[in-house]
Order: sequence, then C-alpha cells, then structure tokens
Amino acid sequence: MELDTIAAISTPMGEGAIGIVRITGDKAIPIADRLYKGRRKLGEVESHTINYGHITDPKTGETVEEIMVSVLHGPRTFTKENMIEINCHGGLVAVNRVLQLILNEGARLAEPGEFTKRAFLNGRIDLSQAEGVIDLIRAKTDRAMNVAMSQVEGRLSGQIQKLRQELLETVAHVEVNIDYPEYDAEEVTLGLLKEKAGAVKTEIDRLLQTASQGKILREGLSTVIIGRPNVGKSSLLNSLVHENKAIVTDVPGTTRDVIEEYVNVRGVPLRLLDTAGIRETEDVVERIGVERSRKLVQEAELSLLVVNYNEQLTEEDEKLFAVSKNRDSIIIVNKTDLSREIDMDRVRELAGSRPVITTSLLKDEGIDELEEAIREMFFEGGMESGDLTYVSNSRHIALLNEASRTIDDALSSAEAGMPVDMVQIDITKAWELLGEVIGDSVNESLIDQLFSQFCLGK
Amino acid sequence: MELDTIAAISTPMGEGAIGIVRITGDKAIPIADRLYKGRRKLGEVESHTINYGHITDPKTGETVEEIMVSVLHGPRTFTKENMIEINCHGGLVAVNRVLQLILNEGARLAEPGEFTKRAFLNGRIDLSQAEGVIDLIRAKTDRAMNVAMSQVEGRLSGQIQKLRQELLETVAHVEVNIDYPEYDAEEVTLGLLKEKAGAVKTEIDRLLQTASQGKILREGLSTVIIGRPNVGKSSLLNSLVHENKAIVTDVPGTTRDVIEEYVNVRGVPLRLLDTAGIRETEDVVERIGVERSRKLVQEAELSLLVVNYNEQLTEEDEKLFAVSKNRDSIIIVNKTDLSREIDMDRVRELAGSRPVITTSLLKDEGIDELEEAIREMFFEGGMESGDLTYVSNSRHIALLNEASRTIDDALSSAEAGMPVDMVQIDITKAWELLGEVIGDSVNESLIDQLFSQFCLGK
Repeated sequence: MELDTIAAISTPMGEGAIGIVRITGDKAIPIADRLYKGRRKLGEVESHTINYGHITDPKTGETVEEIMVSVLHGPRTFTKENMIEINCHGGLVAVNRVLQLILNEGARLAEPGEFTKRAFLNGRIDLSQAEGVIDLIRAKTDRAMNVAMSQVEGRLSGQIQKLRQELLETVAHVEVNIDYPEYDAEEVTLGLLKEKAGAVKTEIDRLLQTASQGKILREGLSTVIIGRPNVGKSSLLNSLVHENKAIVTDVPGTTRDVIEEYVNVRGVPLRLLDTAGIRETEDVVERIGVERSRKLVQEAELSLLVVNYNEQLTEEDEKLFAVSKNRDSIIIVNKTDLSREIDMDRVRELAGSRPVITTSLLKDEGIDELEEAIREMFFEGGMESGDLTYVSNSRHIALLNEASRTIDDALSSAEAGMPVDMVQIDITKAWELLGEVIGDSVNESLIDQLFSQFCLGK
Repeated sequence: MELDTIAAISTPMGEGAIGIVRITGDKAIPIADRLYKGRRKLGEVESHTINYGHITDPKTGETVEEIMVSVLHGPRTFTKENMIEINCHGGLVAVNRVLQLILNEGARLAEPGEFTKRAFLNGRIDLSQAEGVIDLIRAKTDRAMNVAMSQVEGRLSGQIQKLRQELLETVAHVEVNIDYPEYDAEEVTLGLLKEKAGAVKTEIDRLLQTASQGKILREGLSTVIIGRPNVGKSSLLNSLVHENKAIVTDVPGTTRDVIEEYVNVRGVPLRLLDTAGIRETEDVVERIGVERSRKLVQEAELSLLVVNYNEQLTEEDEKLFAVSKNRDSIIIVNKTDLSREIDMDRVRELAGSRPVITTSLLKDEGIDELEEAIREMFFEGGMESGDLTYVSNSRHIALLNEASRTIDDALSSAEAGMPVDMVQIDITKAWELLGEVIGDSVNESLIDQLFSQFCLGK
C-alpha cells in the first residue's frame, strides 16, 4: 500500500511547555532534513535517537525554532512508517510555523486520527485496539484507563481471534462430514455444532456480561440526586465531590475545572447530572419539583433520593419514592445528628428492595456505607479483578449480541433438521460479525467515521 | 549546587494525541527505571535515545501506559541535568497517573518555570535568554517569535556582555591612572571616560531605540476603531480581520477562537480593543459616544478614526478628530463608492500631520494603503531587517534606561571635576545594571517572580 507523508501538531492547543509536530511516511525524514540544522543530517543519524538543532525557514534562512528532533525508522514506530517528532518550545505560533514549513515541503496535513489509522492500515494494531486508543485518551478514571489499556494491548482482540478460529474449525469439520457421507452426517454435525459453536456462544455471552460494567467504566454512570428542599442534597453533592478522589488522579497544580462533574466512587465514575441545579436551588429558593425529578430520574442510571430523618415523610417524599421506584436508586435518610421524626418502617416499606442508608452529612457519617452501596449495586464482586476483559464499546456490544443471536439461529436450524449448508451460512456470518470487531471485515466509511472521532495529530 | 529531582506534565492540559511527563535531576533515570518495563533498563541505554515500553504501577503490577521514553544525559539537555521525557497517549488521566507514580517514587512536583530555572541556575542560559523562552511561548506573530528566538539564542546577552566588558575595562584603565599619578590623571581619565563610557552609552541608547518597536512586536499594538454610527467601523474591523493572516500562521484545522482579537498587519500585531463593542453596536443601536471614544483612544496606542465620504462632517466627527488629535491616529474616509459630500479640505485640516486614507471597504479599495500607513507609522524602514536586536522586555528597557542615565551622571561628574573614585562608582553601577539584564547580579525573589510567569512543565 502506497501512503503519502502526513504531518500534524500532536499536543493540545494552548500555551504549554512543549509542542510536538509529528510527521509519518516515506518522506518524513527528507522533509525534516530540508528544514533542520544540526550537527548531522537526520538521514544519517541512527533510529530512535534525539537530535538537538534548529528549524530554519529555507526561503529566508531565518532560525524559526530551537528544537529536539526524534528520528524513528519504521517498522518500530506508532505507524510502522518512518516518523519524525519535532519537539518545539510550546507556543501557538512556534508549532504552527514549524508545521507550516513542513507542509510547504510537501507533507499533507493529517486528518484527525490519521496517525492511528496508519497504524491500523499498516497492520500494527487492529480496529478494537485503535478504539482502545480513543478510550485511553478520554478515560475519566484509572479503572476506565485500565480497561482501555487492556484493549490497546490486544486482550479483547486476542479473545475475538480465538473465537473466530473456533468457528472456522467448526465450519471445516461440518464440511468434512458433508464430504464423507458414509458417516451419519446429520447427527454428527448436530453434535459437533452444539459442542463447538455452543461453546463459542457461551464465551460471547460471558463477554457481553461485562458490557454494562464496561460501559459504565468507559462513559461514567449518570447519577442524579433528588429530594425535597433542605434535606441535604447539596451537602451530599459536596461530600461526594470532596471526599472522593477527583476523577483525575489528584495532582496539585493541575486544573480541575473541566472535570468538576465527575467523581470517582470506589472506582465507579459517577457523572453527576444537574449539579448546577442543586447548587443554585439550595442557595436561593429550591424549585426542583416532582415532575422535574421524574425527568431527571428517567435520564439517569442511578438516583440518590435524600429524605430528612428529622421530619415526617411528606406527600412530596412519597411521590419521589414512587418516581424512582423502578430505577436503580438508593435511599439516603439524612440528618441523623438531629432527633428522629421520620417513620423508618414506612421508609423501608417505600424503598422495597432498594438500599436504605442513614447519614449525617454534617458529621461525615454514613458516606462510607453509601459509597459501598453504590459499588455493590454496579460492581458486585468482580470489579477489583484485573483479569477481566471488559467489553465497553457500543459497537462491539452490538456486534457481539448479533453474533450470539446468529449462532443461536444456527443451532436452532440444526435442531430443526435444516440442511447443513444453511447452518454453515449462519456460522460463517457469526465469524464475519466477530471480524468486524477487530476490523477484519469492515467497510471503509465505517473506518473513516471511527477515526474521525480522534483528535488531530493522533 | 545540589538540586533535587523534579517532574511535571509539559504539554498543555486537554485531550491531545501526546502527553509528556518530564523529569530532571540526578534521580530522573533511576526513578523512571522503577516504573519502566522495556527491552533494557533505562540506566543502560545510551543518551539521546527513544525507548519503547510500558509504565507499570510498582504496587499492583498493573500496566498503566504504553509509552516512549527519551533518555537524555546531562549536560546536553535543556536543564544540563539528566532528563527523562515520557511520551504518553494524550488523555488527562494517563499523564496524571504517570506523573503521580513518578512523584510517589520521590520526585518533587516542579513549580511553573522550574525546568527553565534549572537551565538558568545550571548556567546553560542567562536570565534574558530565559525571558526569551517565555516570549517565544507567548509570541503572537512570526516576527514576535523571531525577536524572542534571537533573545533565546543569546544575541541580546552577547551585546550586553560586550558592553559590560567595555565598562569593566574603563574602570580598570581609570584605576591604572589613579595608581600612576605621574600622569595627569584627571585629564587622561576624563578623555578615557568620554571615549569609552560614551561609546557604551551610545550603544545602549541605540538598543533603547528598538524598544518601542520591540514592545509592539512582543505585546501587540493596542488599536481602537472610532467613528460615528454607520460610517463603516465594523466593515473596517472585518476587513482587517479577514484580509490579513490571523495572528497564528493560518493552518487549516487549528482553532482560531483564542486569537480572534489579534490581526497581523504587515508584521505589526494589532491588538484590537473593544471589538465586541463594535460588533454589537452596529448590529443594534450604536452607543459609542464621544466620551467613550476619548477613553478608548487614551488606552490605545493607535486609533483609527472612520468618517463618511458620503456625508458632511458633523459636530460629532469634529469632536472625534479632537479626541484623537495628539495620539497616533489615522483618518479613514470611507464609502468612496458613493458620491462625495464631505469637505476633504476640512478633513485634511482637522487631520493635521496625521495620514488620511480614502477607502471603499465595500469594494475592498484602500485597505492596502491603510495597512502601509500603519506599518510606516510604527516600523518605518528597519522592520524587515532580521539583523536588529530588539529590546522588547519592560524589565530590560528599565534597566538599560537606568544604565544610560548612570553613565551620563558619571560623565557629568567627571566633567565637573568630581573625584575619580566617585565616577568609578557610577560606572560600576552601570555595569551592575547591565548585569541584571542577563541575571548576573539579580536577587533571588526577582528570579522566583520571573520564573513563576512560566507555565507548568517548562
């Protein structure tokens, strides 16, 4: 495959200490050499070396930047092609100017994700690994990052490949049986299918069981806090935000603005909805009515309903219990530092099977129990095990579901005595569906669309 | 000097393709080695090499990131110390987590600018070069970047050092004359001072002449557009913004939001004030009165006064001429595509020595002349010469001014027959002032304050 030479800025835009311009392709090194002034030509230095020098404008001879250039010969690179990474002082002008000079020398501006796409097209990674790279960049918690990392490392790909191999062998065996009709083809085939394809289906379903957790890890669990005015909703919000590690490992000096609405509760990333509403309304007059709450609860994956230990249940409380009844929700009876006025039996009755936690947010009591309840609700058991391969990507989940159904169809057809070659078609289809997960049989526009989700320069 | 090992994220925060964590100091390599898994230990690889591998959490054994590590042995590094640069996938969580692991292994989180400060403390660059690094990062135009780059490369430092050397020699010569009183000390000393110190002063004054241009290049020329409603202010704004290269070299796909109010007019960076005002007011009802205009004109370094070719001058026009009279301003007579109603003689009379440009912004006529007038007003002649060392930093300008005055004092004292050792004190003081420019004699709190302007990780 003949691919052209592309270039882009690979660091986020903004004033930073370092800005990197990346080039990949056959002409990467000669293009850089036409702009580079250093002790030796970049074409002569060894691969995987860092070279100090300057970028000069070939038209004017002006020194444009003081730089460090990494020279990387394929195939031991991100794209498997020859690559150049030019490490500039961080300003906007500097990196843009260096990029412009590179484009003038004949490189094309890379599209978003095009470096990773090269890695895919050149066979260094498959599609699910490439998708893991996006997830890695977007990960909101350490745990989500681990899931993405294991995908980048090809753990999901490995499992998918194993399953595909097994389906292929099943098809081959069935074929053998057709070709040697001296055996009782029908019966042997059915037995074989049940055993082999059935095992693959079991494995696919096992993977799918991780999907809901995988999706939560990847996207965060949308969570809403509801309750009457002054029951302590904003205290709960503050406790969750302040008691827990922010979603980004908490390093002094890093900005937290962009991530304010995520909290990491024992590895479960909560995406807190309508926090502005809560902050505003408890400060002034609270206006979250029952209808608003009903809508929020419908949008959220987890609802936290707060009631007041120090007051009798009101009609509004009862309505809020009803609103959140058939959704994942936890009841928080707050203000245990005050005297009990609430009817706890009635609370438990209304809660049904939902957990009821008593707290005194004022005294920091009960938060541990609440957090444990959240973790249990979504990650009972397995969460801490690093061994699990999570399926977290909606595209993968849809494909695995369809593959599972298709194998089911094949098995039913076989049971119903359908011709063996019909059954074979279904098994082959399942094999293709699994192939789409890793990009083995996938159409070009889907690939383009997937990579366009990347940021520039990746 | 014993300095500890420090680390920081050196790329701007945000989702990017690459995130870099930097470590500098004695322990940089051993710290990285405790987290790194690759083909060889980082302590064993050659300097200036790039090494593929993984960062693992030593506590859990988990793979945290897939990385490329640059190993750089001092003194051929940015800080002159051993340095490690860990090139991560770009996400917020990834780089933060890698940084956290490094801090756990005993590195200290670097303060803003502390890497550059190391380069200064370890004698790789002087203070004016370090200040050039900040300017380079913040540069708004190519030209500003060139000024900063020449400062980083030590051109200003070189000139300052030469001048200091000459002052030192002057002091030495004067001393010789004092020690050998058989000569007519007074007279010889005076002659020597006039010649030597006078030459240094001339050179300092020549540098100071570049200061106003240097400051404009560095900070942009604050510019305001004034005029009655509907004379074409917003058309002028749009012409300036759209006809000209945006301040950042215009690369497709890079964001322009942050830089909207800068335009680059023939190398002169205009910082357009109150553009929101202009955009709003011409859309609805225009409310920039004369008083508001007076205030804007006072704040700006350049005023562009627009009047209407198709209408007679009004009282308000005349007031606006008066408001901008003693400031750098250009008169733009717009709408020459319509019939002339304005009294051009009166316009010229009111303009005095200020340039008068006729335009039809509708037909794109006259913009070239306007731009040329702006360039001429601030960069007559010398602008394009790459040879000039610009002084652009206020701190430097203040020090050079003081040094120039001090030499003047010395010369006057000598003329007035003051004792030679008094004169020597002034010359020595001038030598010290020049030293402050390059950080040779500067107090620690100033240094701390200077470096704190840097971004994290630089």
